[in-house]
Amino acid sequence: MSIETTIREMAAAAKKASVAVARCSTQEKDRALMAIADRLEKESARIQAENSEDLKRAREMGLTAAMIDRLTVKDSTIASMAGGLREVAALEDPVGAIQKTWRRPNGLTVSKMRIPLGVIGIIYESRPNVTIDAAALCFKAGNAVILRGGSEALASNQVLARIVHDVLNEAGLPKEAVQVVPTRDREAVTALLAQEEYIDLIIPRGGESLIRFVVEHSRIPVLKHYKGVCHVYVDADADIEMAADIAFNSKVQRPGVCNALETLLVHEKIAEDFLPVMAERFGKAGVELRGCPATRKILPAAAGATDADWPAEYLDMILAVKVVSDMDEAIEHIGKYGSAHTEAIVTKDYTRAHRFLREVDSSVVLVNASTRFNDGGQLGLGAEIGISTSKLHAFGPMGVEELTTTKFIVLGEGQVRT
Amino acid sequence: MSIETTIREMAAAAKKASVAVARCSTQEKDRALMAIADRLEKESARIQAENSEDLKRAREMGLTAAMIDRLTVKDSTIASMAGGLREVAALEDPVGAIQKTWRRPNGLTVSKMRIPLGVIGIIYESRPNVTIDAAALCFKAGNAVILRGGSEALASNQVLARIVHDVLNEAGLPKEAVQVVPTRDREAVTALLAQEEYIDLIIPRGGESLIRFVVEHSRIPVLKHYKGVCHVYVDADADIEMAADIAFNSKVQRPGVCNALETLLVHEKIAEDFLPVMAERFGKAGVELRGCPATRKILPAAAGATDADWPAEYLDMILAVKVVSDMDEAIEHIGKYGSAHTEAIVTKDYTRAHRFLREVDSSVVLVNASTRFNDGGQLGLGAEIGISTSKLHAFGPMGVEELTTTKFIVLGEGQVRT
Repeated sequence: MSIETTIREMAAAAKKASVAVARCSTQEKDRALMAIADRLEKESARIQAENSEDLKRAREMGLTAAMIDRLTVKDSTIASMAGGLREVAALEDPVGAIQKTWRRPNGLTVSKMRIPLGVIGIIYESRPNVTIDAAALCFKAGNAVILRGGSEALASNQVLARIVHDVLNEAGLPKEAVQVVPTRDREAVTALLAQEEYIDLIIPRGGESLIRFVVEHSRIPVLKHYKGVCHVYVDADADIEMAADIAFNSKVQRPGVCNALETLLVHEKIAEDFLPVMAERFGKAGVELRGCPATRKILPAAAGATDADWPAEYLDMILAVKVVSDMDEAIEHIGKYGSAHTEAIVTKDYTRAHRFLREVDSSVVLVNASTRFNDGGQLGLGAEIGISTSKLHAFGPMGVEELTTTKFIVLGEGQVRT
Repeated sequence: MSIETTIREMAAAAKKASVAVARCSTQEKDRALMAIADRLEKESARIQAENSEDLKRAREMGLTAAMIDRLTVKDSTIASMAGGLREVAALEDPVGAIQKTWRRPNGLTVSKMRIPLGVIGIIYESRPNVTIDAAALCFKAGNAVILRGGSEALASNQVLARIVHDVLNEAGLPKEAVQVVPTRDREAVTALLAQEEYIDLIIPRGGESLIRFVVEHSRIPVLKHYKGVCHVYVDADADIEMAADIAFNSKVQRPGVCNALETLLVHEKIAEDFLPVMAERFGKAGVELRGCPATRKILPAAAGATDADWPAEYLDMILAVKVVSDMDEAIEHIGKYGSAHTEAIVTKDYTRAHRFLREVDSSVVLVNASTRFNDGGQLGLGAEIGISTSKLHAFGPMGVEELTTTKFIVLGEGQVRT
């Protein structure tokens, strides 16, 4: 069977299964999620045996130590997958919720009801735990899902899918609700992106080149997450200690992730007081500073920033620093170089806080808090499937509710249109 | 200048203008909309002069009478555009509204705030009034808009844009907030669909081939509206008079539109009583019936339906009729042949009404009411920009709120992540 045919049949089966999943009660879904968690723990040895096949192949192919580390399934990986499943089971079920209801002059009662999207395709790299996390969120939201993980992780992903299938079978649910693409061939991705008849949404998770490839080839709507070039703006009258804490936490707490700080913008009135305090803390932590000319007047030890630094997503212990003459310049800089991901202001001024919140066009805008809070768990959405930096459908962290949509339901007593 | 360059510069200018429109107060926007309405009425002669250029060209090109009718701008067309503008001015402004707010254990206050999408591209056919209707809705929602109308209507669309520009200029707003593509060349559409750097959303309005072209060529998210193959299901215990009224209104009140009834599904227990009543009313109105074998046993005068009838969007005085053995068969038929647009049940049974509402996967599902109510105005959204039959972002009629998105705003007091 050709790859196109395989993928097409998988997508058609997913569509059919999605009808059954959409009609599941919350209880049925949560029981299945809990049962999958138990089964993963019980079948730990079987999972790790398949994972060692992937690892063996990865070593033969000369993958880097970091890549092999991401690929490895340990006892703790399985515990974390099971924990994730139990967390998702505990989340509120969005399906069937009535968002709002109103009455029309002719007596019709109109409501918006949350419903699943249908079939979701997820294209991601390497880590096998994403297979379980993504499947759990999609399933809880009443969707069927087709998972295409990294080719290095195929054996691991397939054994995870088999375990999910065993549980779904026992629960009388269609196993096609959760499917893993059974080939390493890259053609499978292109074939998946052409199934607009069956698949409602594609979510790519991975580097920029993967996302660009998906956007360019997909006829299906794509929820994308490009890079996070995040900013903290320290306002003229900020509390200097608070500003240093927030900048430090935003940059250093986990520098390799998308909500980490990349460029610090500092009002010129506070620069002389703030920059030395900040530089001392960052210096001790081993962060390299790259400053604009005004920054370097105050911090001569800092390297000079070039035009390449302002749009850079370092994901590393490097920070660009720019002194600005006012908040307008900061907002303009963010608009020009930012990625609409996460931006924070540190200020005591009510009017500027308010204006920053309104005028900065990013998925999460914070006052006096770390950029590291742009995260579904931290913001209270529960687990997240990603952070959308495009504005359609969802902008910012996407939880289980963002994997649903709404339809209108209308209750009448024989009304016709005149 | 090449078409690509023209379009790219327009898109970049729209992006810039969108920042200013996003920051406009409700009052500024509403004043501008009212001023455009007044100006259109005042400049009626100028508009009709340009329109007659389009009409002259259309006649030379041999366009059909129906197409020329759609293209013609009369006094009443201008009155209707001005009326639409005043209606949109009266709508509630969604921008800046807080959807919900919650507090996290660490004291952070998290809210979702409505914000404009940014730049919207609208690709449509023929009718010049769409130029004003679409511009008004996009502008009210705080967006900039690029309009690409039918090539036959270029002179009309351009004079409308000039009038909008005059008003925006006088109000101190950037005229690039509303732009009309200044060429008939089809390349302009392809160029528009490639401006993913500047344009946030594309809305095609027109026939299926236009929509398919846009979906296949766009790198920008598309909100599409394919055909409406709408159903009414008459349940076993429906009130026969009510069922006949609803079926008749759904089919006949305006047969050429997407929310008109195309297939009537009738429970076998009520078929012998209902079908003759229904057939008499439809017969008098000149509707051709195409029935399944069971229908034709009761209505021997009806034509026989073929496989081509069930997925057909007639947009005409033709109705397919099928007798089903129960509601499950009706729901399955709708899932197989419907277009996720509008479906209604007529019933007295609470349980089946409830199940139909939950299980039918269409943008608007009604109990005991006409399918013709799937319309932004009728459902209380105000004016609408279209009816989305894809599930992402908006499903069903799209009003001014659906032309916005939300961002997260977070208020802290120095919180960092631990």
